[in-house]
Amino acid sequence: MNLSAQQKDLLPYVNTLIGTEKMGHTYPGATAPFGSVQLSPDTDTISYELNGKYNKDVYKYCAGYRYEDKTIVGFSHTHFSGTGHSDLGDFLVMPTVGELKMNPGTAQNPDSGFRSRFSHDEEIAQAGYYSVNLKDYKIKAELTATTRTGFHQYTFPKSNNAHIILDLMSGIYNYDDKTVWTYVRVVNDSLITGYRQTNGWARTRTVYFAMSFSKPFKNYGRKDFDATQVYRGFWRKFNQNENFPEIAGKKIRMHFDFDTEEGEKIQIKFALSPVSQNNALENMQSEIQGWDFEAVKNQTQADWNKELNKIQIEASENDKTNFYTSLYHSFINPTTYMDVNGEYKGLDQEIHKADGFTHYTTFSLWDTYRALHPFFNIVQPSRNNDMVKSMMKHYEQNSLKMLPIWSHYANDNWCMSGYHSVTVVADAIIKGTFDGDANIALDACIVTANKRNYEGIGDYIDLGFIPDERNGTSVSNTLEYAYDDWAIAQAAMKLGRMDVYNEFIKRSQNWRNNFDESITMMLPKKLDGTFRKEFDINDTHGQGFIEGNSWNYSFFVPHDPENLAKAMGGKKKFTQKLNTLFTMHLPDEFFADTEDITREGIIGGYVHGNEPAHHVAYLYNWSSEPWKTQETVRHILEMQYKPTPDGLGGNDDCGQMSAWYMFSAMGFYPVAPGSDWYSLGSPLVDKASINLENGKTFTVESINQSKENVYVKKVELNGKEIKDYKLKHSDIVNGGKLVFYMSKSK
Amino acid sequence: MNLSAQQKDLLPYVNTLIGTEKMGHTYPGATAPFGSVQLSPDTDTISYELNGKYNKDVYKYCAGYRYEDKTIVGFSHTHFSGTGHSDLGDFLVMPTVGELKMNPGTAQNPDSGFRSRFSHDEEIAQAGYYSVNLKDYKIKAELTATTRTGFHQYTFPKSNNAHIILDLMSGIYNYDDKTVWTYVRVVNDSLITGYRQTNGWARTRTVYFAMSFSKPFKNYGRKDFDATQVYRGFWRKFNQNENFPEIAGKKIRMHFDFDTEEGEKIQIKFALSPVSQNNALENMQSEIQGWDFEAVKNQTQADWNKELNKIQIEASENDKTNFYTSLYHSFINPTTYMDVNGEYKGLDQEIHKADGFTHYTTFSLWDTYRALHPFFNIVQPSRNNDMVKSMMKHYEQNSLKMLPIWSHYANDNWCMSGYHSVTVVADAIIKGTFDGDANIALDACIVTANKRNYEGIGDYIDLGFIPDERNGTSVSNTLEYAYDDWAIAQAAMKLGRMDVYNEFIKRSQNWRNNFDESITMMLPKKLDGTFRKEFDINDTHGQGFIEGNSWNYSFFVPHDPENLAKAMGGKKKFTQKLNTLFTMHLPDEFFADTEDITREGIIGGYVHGNEPAHHVAYLYNWSSEPWKTQETVRHILEMQYKPTPDGLGGNDDCGQMSAWYMFSAMGFYPVAPGSDWYSLGSPLVDKASINLENGKTFTVESINQSKENVYVKKVELNGKEIKDYKLKHSDIVNGGKLVFYMSKSK
Repeated sequence: MNLSAQQKDLLPYVNTLIGTEKMGHTYPGATAPFGSVQLSPDTDTISYELNGKYNKDVYKYCAGYRYEDKTIVGFSHTHFSGTGHSDLGDFLVMPTVGELKMNPGTAQNPDSGFRSRFSHDEEIAQAGYYSVNLKDYKIKAELTATTRTGFHQYTFPKSNNAHIILDLMSGIYNYDDKTVWTYVRVVNDSLITGYRQTNGWARTRTVYFAMSFSKPFKNYGRKDFDATQVYRGFWRKFNQNENFPEIAGKKIRMHFDFDTEEGEKIQIKFALSPVSQNNALENMQSEIQGWDFEAVKNQTQADWNKELNKIQIEASENDKTNFYTSLYHSFINPTTYMDVNGEYKGLDQEIHKADGFTHYTTFSLWDTYRALHPFFNIVQPSRNNDMVKSMMKHYEQNSLKMLPIWSHYANDNWCMSGYHSVTVVADAIIKGTFDGDANIALDACIVTANKRNYEGIGDYIDLGFIPDERNGTSVSNTLEYAYDDWAIAQAAMKLGRMDVYNEFIKRSQNWRNNFDESITMMLPKKLDGTFRKEFDINDTHGQGFIEGNSWNYSFFVPHDPENLAKAMGGKKKFTQKLNTLFTMHLPDEFFADTEDITREGIIGGYVHGNEPAHHVAYLYNWSSEPWKTQETVRHILEMQYKPTPDGLGGNDDCGQMSAWYMFSAMGFYPVAPGSDWYSLGSPLVDKASINLENGKTFTVESINQSKENVYVKKVELNGKEIKDYKLKHSDIVNGGKLVFYMSKSK
Repeated sequence: MNLSAQQKDLLPYVNTLIGTEKMGHTYPGATAPFGSVQLSPDTDTISYELNGKYNKDVYKYCAGYRYEDKTIVGFSHTHFSGTGHSDLGDFLVMPTVGELKMNPGTAQNPDSGFRSRFSHDEEIAQAGYYSVNLKDYKIKAELTATTRTGFHQYTFPKSNNAHIILDLMSGIYNYDDKTVWTYVRVVNDSLITGYRQTNGWARTRTVYFAMSFSKPFKNYGRKDFDATQVYRGFWRKFNQNENFPEIAGKKIRMHFDFDTEEGEKIQIKFALSPVSQNNALENMQSEIQGWDFEAVKNQTQADWNKELNKIQIEASENDKTNFYTSLYHSFINPTTYMDVNGEYKGLDQEIHKADGFTHYTTFSLWDTYRALHPFFNIVQPSRNNDMVKSMMKHYEQNSLKMLPIWSHYANDNWCMSGYHSVTVVADAIIKGTFDGDANIALDACIVTANKRNYEGIGDYIDLGFIPDERNGTSVSNTLEYAYDDWAIAQAAMKLGRMDVYNEFIKRSQNWRNNFDESITMMLPKKLDGTFRKEFDINDTHGQGFIEGNSWNYSFFVPHDPENLAKAMGGKKKFTQKLNTLFTMHLPDEFFADTEDITREGIIGGYVHGNEPAHHVAYLYNWSSEPWKTQETVRHILEMQYKPTPDGLGGNDDCGQMSAWYMFSAMGFYPVAPGSDWYSLGSPLVDKASINLENGKTFTVESINQSKENVYVKKVELNGKEIKDYKLKHSDIVNGGKLVFYMSKSK
């Protein structure tokens, strides 16, 4: 591996199996940084529906792979990382030998289908590389990927009956009609192209592909599992099941047959495109010439090392593994959604060309506006700039004229509360990482925030809150809109648009409308202006909240902690309220049915596994006992992140959990994205050097650091003490040194 | 209407209602010459399936309109003309007033849905223009079209509850899953764009559209009739049924609501594209500026007059109507399949750009190779050149590497026997209308003719016939392949490729292998080389034939009538055999179940409503009584073509029946396309002048012409008598005069 003099080999600290057990929802397969292809094993294919109803088990398979499973169904090319709802899993490939099986079979009886047993003892899971022994077939499977192309290498035993299955029906969060259409052309004896169109979490989604084999297949065929097509009359002129090169339908699996020698490798390059088969082929040919698997793997891993070296830390081995696996997980989404020629499919389902920027998709913004995009504004400012530009294209191409809520593959699924894209845009404007027209971007934020027919916004504008009667998650929405409005106001201030500032700074105070002063908690308010009486303060469901109960959401005023503390009765009362949150007993019943988190993801009533309270540990900085931020942050770092498959206390959520970890491990956190400051905590690392894109370095050092020494006696920025627990964004990007002096006493 | 000095106003002789009753399967709506849009009323929407089985009634609605129906469901934008299987019917538009109805309702109870009663008394059906009064709503509907854009004009009564329905589920030969996907964007209050993807006779087909209203709608909405979509959770954040601009699903109808004044016109421009929404919009903007319905109608009708003036005839009024309606029907397919910017979707489902030619689709080649393409080689040689180029693109883009069999909208449905595209290609090479690389085109013919796994070709090559055991239509296939092979041989001869000539001229003699000399009829042959014994000479079904029984197919050796006559026992026996065909009694049972023809479509055992015997009346020219060709042709002209809705004796088959009419009415017919000669019959017209593209004129005159004077005493070409009943292609294209001297005696 070629590393520059300054670079360390950080790959050993990335364990892609972290988060694959319990609630992490990460995938262990191969991807390039921010790559379009996520080539990863799927250990089962659970249907979204069971007997016409939602099948809760599907949730476990958000990323396709469960560490506790004993079999692998195959390797598919697209996966979300850490989501709490899912989609994708396109183009499942599985090598087999022996009798041709065209069904995956069951976990209980693996021999009933093409799936294979496997063991973690024979599994390697690295950044950009995954390998496993498929026990049932004695096939060694190896995977790597470039940005748009998956590269498979299968080492076969001797066989005159070897197969490679291409399953075009399989998918994540699959259901009977999910595959809307499939089209495949067998171009020659070692190249096929086609597309797969799905109706899933993305309503209208098409992925084009080109699949190239290193060895010609001797025979091929398809099986069509759809019995509903009616126009088959003259199509019977061919036997379309065997060696017929034009394949289309809704439920297709294909097989490609080979003779293999002992130890013979058959390789597959599998490229994706959002636009066309030709573009997929161009992507493949542009990214990978020839069949040198090792070279491609080495290049991708070198790319990863380059990205990982953006932050160099000194810490314990376990903490390094947590840190660099977090860094890895934060650098795999949003994903590149653009061909090498710049073309991509827009939200209008038309083909567009990205002019001077990389177009991205997979925006889990309710999660990622909090810490991931702010993290990018420090370590990936160019990419974040392009992400904002991608969001602006979404806006332009959108017949709704809204910035994205939760978007992937030219669709918005409108998942979760708020319109947090505006905060990502505002944060980039304020921190100077967006180099487009900031006024146009701000206009897009304003239009989005005034979309009256979306999720209670009309009421919110008219009344200052969303009546409980009219919206099931009225409090979450009001609080999050108010926060986003504040971010709009900040960007408007920076751009000198005071009329906009005045309007939105007023709206940002709407959190007060759901604040019941009598109990100093956030509560749903009714049309008549009174607070709802039938209400369980611990419960999330049907109480006006989503992914967080009143306890967690009552602190959701990241933009105005000082006034929140006042509203809660002053600094002391604020401290007590925070203490209660972190020490209360939350009965099992209130999270047992909650997706996304585990028992371990909860500290008292604080739920780290979901995002709404991610800033709350830092609110002690506005209380009468700021040291509690330090203690609590270190407690969360230790409790919620472990270098094991079950090490994540909740969904990684496209890198948000990871970004929280890295910020906090370095001793600061963006409590209020849209501002130009960070709130200080307690660093976990001995030292962290952030190698900025501008060539400067920002270093964090913690003196006298240890597991017990979690309290900060003093902090110095470039030798000057910081008293207000705040670090400015400019202090970071100008380069410099932040030194924490640690102690075991408060 | 602006006509040049040489042009006549021939529009009065086009009656687009001809063929809309019984078996003609034509549509009465508006289309431009060879246009992409066929905007026509649909009088019902019959499902292809009824209780999971084929619904025979669907066949009647191949063109969407039945003259005998009493209601109109709406006006859709794509229709086949005269086919015996169907598809299309995209984007049904219906204006209504009063209560909003989102179902079409039934013919029995029109008030149950949005359909309306209508009367032929209030209907105008012209080339390029259709108008009808929608009685139930007192709305006058008018339609015209440019090549790629339909233009609707609806004159409303006063109403504050007027609607325009856009039905995206409706289709011809529809079934429950036919609409694979629909996508619609409401761009603004008077423009929507989107696409519709179907799985029908064309397996993978997408039509993009742009729909522009002359007046902003005050409100709009959709109804989604699909209950199967599961991922609806966050999509509920909007009320997607009303004024929601991003619409997608499988079963969508939309409504657009208006207030109207008495007599207010609301107009719609509806453009199609095979490629994209943007291209559809570009097509519309390029073809129609503004909202002047009359101007567009006048231009399209002027375009029609220009096309119709390519042949100017003198004849009775009825014969003129038959002739010009035939000319109209022969100039509406194949259809333009290319955007104004040259882009089209290829057979590989990728976007291509036509370089220097117009790309066409809708190739019903089993029908049209016989007379329609030969007709084009005289009157539309440039278009026929482009059609051959389109077929070559089909070949290049086809993973199967075959020229088209029956292709439409970037698909082949492989309908009917033979590989007759090779004859169209050969005919164009031989007649010099193809200006591409003839050797490459011949290669494509050869590859197609050697596609061993298609419809018995392997056996045909190996054995010289297709064993009855292995193919249900073995005799039709063998005879048609033999004919096509002869055409290949002719092209090879012209190109000096004698190896190819020798191979295919030999194959062209394969008709002899199915010729049972003992009864001098074509019969199915078994693997062991014996003829099948259980056989009904009158029956078509399960006897080795398709759309023609042994009687009709026994004469199918158009390329070698002389030897056929010999094989049948010489000229006298040949005459007797032909006499038998035209005079025998074919019991009802043998055609009662046959699609495509009526009792009137049969003369003796000769079935004019189907194509295999279209050349047979001319075979008398090789018999001992050539004058019988004259008598028989005139009899067919009179019996099978009438200027009434029920005037066609069988499916018009994309203009083949019409081309037969025009050739025969002018006194000659291309018995063997792929040759450079025509066989002479008996002209119906007094005079016909063909205005050739090269500026020359070929004139046919019949002296002493009358209904009784059907016999030809003498024929002179440029004053020189023709004795062999043959006219050379060069004699026509060089211009000149053909004079028939008619008599009432043989």
